[in-house]
Amino acid sequence: MKKLNGIAASSGIAIAKVYELKDPDLNFEKTSIDNPGQEIERLESALEVSRQELEKIKAHTLKELGEEHAEIFSAHLLVLGDPELINPIKDKINDDKVNAEAALDEVATMFIDMFKAMDNEYMRERAADIHDVTKRVMSHLLQVTFPDPALIDEQVIVIARDLTPSDTAQLNREFVKGFATDIGGRTSHSAIMARSLEIPAVVGTKEITGAVKKDDQIIVDGIEGTVIINPTEEEIKVYEAKQAAFAKQQEEWAKLKDEPTFSADGEQVELAANIGTPNDVEGVLNNGGEGVGLYRTEFLYMGNSELPSEDVQFEAYKAVLEKMGDKPVVVRTLDVGGDKEISYLDMPHEMNPFLGFRAIRFCLENEHVFRPQLRALLRASAYGNLKIMFPMIATLEEFRQAKALLLEETDNLKKDGVKVSDNIEVGIMVEIPSTAVIAKQFAKEVDFFSIGTNDLIQYTMAADRMNEQVSYLYQPYHPAILNLVNNVIEAAHAEGKWAGMCGEMAGDSTAIPLLLALGLDEFSMSATSILPARTQILSLNKKELAALKDEFLSLSTAEEVVALAEKTINK
Amino acid sequence: MKKLNGIAASSGIAIAKVYELKDPDLNFEKTSIDNPGQEIERLESALEVSRQELEKIKAHTLKELGEEHAEIFSAHLLVLGDPELINPIKDKINDDKVNAEAALDEVATMFIDMFKAMDNEYMRERAADIHDVTKRVMSHLLQVTFPDPALIDEQVIVIARDLTPSDTAQLNREFVKGFATDIGGRTSHSAIMARSLEIPAVVGTKEITGAVKKDDQIIVDGIEGTVIINPTEEEIKVYEAKQAAFAKQQEEWAKLKDEPTFSADGEQVELAANIGTPNDVEGVLNNGGEGVGLYRTEFLYMGNSELPSEDVQFEAYKAVLEKMGDKPVVVRTLDVGGDKEISYLDMPHEMNPFLGFRAIRFCLENEHVFRPQLRALLRASAYGNLKIMFPMIATLEEFRQAKALLLEETDNLKKDGVKVSDNIEVGIMVEIPSTAVIAKQFAKEVDFFSIGTNDLIQYTMAADRMNEQVSYLYQPYHPAILNLVNNVIEAAHAEGKWAGMCGEMAGDSTAIPLLLALGLDEFSMSATSILPARTQILSLNKKELAALKDEFLSLSTAEEVVALAEKTINK
Repeated sequence: MKKLNGIAASSGIAIAKVYELKDPDLNFEKTSIDNPGQEIERLESALEVSRQELEKIKAHTLKELGEEHAEIFSAHLLVLGDPELINPIKDKINDDKVNAEAALDEVATMFIDMFKAMDNEYMRERAADIHDVTKRVMSHLLQVTFPDPALIDEQVIVIARDLTPSDTAQLNREFVKGFATDIGGRTSHSAIMARSLEIPAVVGTKEITGAVKKDDQIIVDGIEGTVIINPTEEEIKVYEAKQAAFAKQQEEWAKLKDEPTFSADGEQVELAANIGTPNDVEGVLNNGGEGVGLYRTEFLYMGNSELPSEDVQFEAYKAVLEKMGDKPVVVRTLDVGGDKEISYLDMPHEMNPFLGFRAIRFCLENEHVFRPQLRALLRASAYGNLKIMFPMIATLEEFRQAKALLLEETDNLKKDGVKVSDNIEVGIMVEIPSTAVIAKQFAKEVDFFSIGTNDLIQYTMAADRMNEQVSYLYQPYHPAILNLVNNVIEAAHAEGKWAGMCGEMAGDSTAIPLLLALGLDEFSMSATSILPARTQILSLNKKELAALKDEFLSLSTAEEVVALAEKTINK
Repeated sequence: MKKLNGIAASSGIAIAKVYELKDPDLNFEKTSIDNPGQEIERLESALEVSRQELEKIKAHTLKELGEEHAEIFSAHLLVLGDPELINPIKDKINDDKVNAEAALDEVATMFIDMFKAMDNEYMRERAADIHDVTKRVMSHLLQVTFPDPALIDEQVIVIARDLTPSDTAQLNREFVKGFATDIGGRTSHSAIMARSLEIPAVVGTKEITGAVKKDDQIIVDGIEGTVIINPTEEEIKVYEAKQAAFAKQQEEWAKLKDEPTFSADGEQVELAANIGTPNDVEGVLNNGGEGVGLYRTEFLYMGNSELPSEDVQFEAYKAVLEKMGDKPVVVRTLDVGGDKEISYLDMPHEMNPFLGFRAIRFCLENEHVFRPQLRALLRASAYGNLKIMFPMIATLEEFRQAKALLLEETDNLKKDGVKVSDNIEVGIMVEIPSTAVIAKQFAKEVDFFSIGTNDLIQYTMAADRMNEQVSYLYQPYHPAILNLVNNVIEAAHAEGKWAGMCGEMAGDSTAIPLLLALGLDEFSMSATSILPARTQILSLNKKELAALKDEFLSLSTAEEVVALAEKTINK
């Protein structure tokens, strides 16, 4: 037996033999051609067959998995029809007199390399889309066929270098018990789809395809992120027990789906979810989310080649608000810059982008970007329970300036007879140390705080969270972080406001007792963390934990904090 | 009349007619040559004449200005003798069969461009050194002569595109009343020498050489950083009055040189200076410094092409300690990384260098760099009143680890019979928000704090202080900064420790009343700011200011803080 470590992409345990999903041989010879017209016809025909296939897969996916997953194939269809990709291929056939295969490969490779080089998660995924579509078109040019996951008729674990969205969409849940890949991360398309399909998955193992052969039996542990190749009888027994325990736990969790969140001593908190698009709302509701604690609007901007119009934004915000009914939805206004670049916005190149011109700093200087977003939000406010928050607020002046723009647009809309809710809470992200330090001053003017721990930790520790050499300093449990979080919560409560948290920390089982001790009102996390968190909170006594607050705040190191937190969990 | 704005490089007012220091025509023709040996001989001869000249200038400077200024010419002599510069010139003559002028120009330009591209103050100054030396050698190759500032025999203000160290060293104080340049900054060689010579100077005017003609009269205002060309009679009167007032003020200041620093109500504080090299100590003592509050040791590393040996470091530290007598000298251990790169240390390229692998983070991972510095400091401790501080401390573990290394090396040295002081205080820079927030926990273990406001502000506000687009967020008076500074001072005092400040803020006349109100014990600043600060503190009532502390700390914006601070000054 051999054990590989990867990234846990979708929870659960699968035990079955492998089915390797391999690409057909797409090698081709580059040839000179005399008749470009004929090659362009071949290309057009391959594009058309690909288009028909994608339409079918999209319809199939829509039926099986719902709209959000089908959208991936809409993206693929857009790539197929994009003149910026297709015209250069035709030009190359005409100008260089090469066959369609060579022209397709050269142009696609250029775009893929360009997008990959942008060093940005979103662009890397666009590169993957082009790669995926190109392979399909190439197979039709070469008249070879793809392996068809739909043909699988026995229980297997699919392994592949990477699973394309098309592959994932065609996996039959009856037979495909899990999958494992060489590459990919928790936010790749395939990982997201695995979680929706509830198929256990481990991605980024680096070497699974090289490490197994036909008919090997493997175990995919999507909880720990490990793959075991040819396990012993004993190991199989251990994992079968783990599998049964997980199933039982899921049943327990599911019982809490429509329940409110109370601690053992009857104190209520709110468990909300972080989302990126309207399609994520279904997962929030399925996982018992009591609200959306962070709607990251930048995906609307990153998924576009130009500024999304006020109407496009309005529709997206309205969709989320309507689906959430009377549950609260906290929308964060545009947070660009830092590691999130948007090609059509004129962002400066910076020496320290995390300390640069981003989020509210950018928006206040670019009202032509900011005002339409505010108007779209205000228009959408009539359709649900909207709260607005501004990111990267470092000074009260910034908050006042942003709120003034919001009030101006409210007046403008009302003058035009547009309905705007009168109960929109306006708050801020607390992710810059200055704001956490003078939370008391801010609490007089904002309606709520949402603590963004990812950035707050990186600035408080002066350590780039993406930089591996200083990653040991990314310490959510550093006593300074606890003291700042406590300061924010106390400041909010002193003014009768609420304080939430929307960073990774809010869903962490070690952090939850601590945050409960400090009096946090709202915990916003990945949707799939909500039911485990609710289960944990049910077992915690908030008053007992609160009695430890001063002890927690006076500790000297993160290690001491974790030790005390774990003592409270395990006692 | 015309007014130009520049950078105030050296205080005081000068009124006189201009003397333009222009380079001779150093144009040459690139020619092919047949006899490389002969060209190399011409080169060698020009190098030799240049060497003799530089030795003479160096001796003259040593006599007139002292060792620290003469060292610039040692640097020039090193450039002249550097085989890495000279050999490629000879190779080019041999290989490309070009004349010595062309070979010199091409090689020097390559090095200058390379150093300039490094975007680092130190390297830009190395580029200036090579430029300076190359011009001298070129003039001997071309057999033209430089203008000789020593020939000036009437009262003038020298103007030039830039003043080379050689030019500055030869300025005769009897006749040269001031100077103004197109380029340069406050830390360029010429600015530093102007301050030592106490000649009023304005640098970086961008256009002074183009804006004046022979016999124009000008005023150089080195207090405000302005130059007035052809002033009116009235303006001359205004500036003569200003000149007299400045002279009087200097006399007043000078009276306080050997005085301690007391507030009007008799509370004592310490005014110390920030230094970079042993040569800066003279200025500290001349300006009434009561100690060195920050000795930045990185210049020792940046001025070298390899790691400075333990002995070289020992000599530098010992020199400072001896010159300072029993006055305290706070030495900061190596602070590299961020914007300070050192070629021979293997520093990673980082996306956000200010949030990266720097200072103590680097030193703890590179004991072969850190231990020799600690040993050199410990050996030097026998020669004065040494205090050691570690930069960029974010966690108590880092401090403990650094201190443990220091204790290990103390033991090692004592075992070898080396004398080490038993009274070395060991403290930290407080420049990372986490450390300012839990100063209480740190105060139990450190001997003192020195608040580094430059970095503390940039991290607390999450705004790169070098980035112009977010420079409005570099707010020393943001209430969060005051609250953090207050937290550090209170934590120190609760444990009977002292708290100092070594950022720009400590010498600012608006900040001084505030810092006095908060109870700061030690203010460390540029040497030339010490006497004005002492004068200001003499007029301030610390108890009255301290009564305003809570009001200061509860203000909401930097604007409100400055308004209240200025009210206390002007009342």
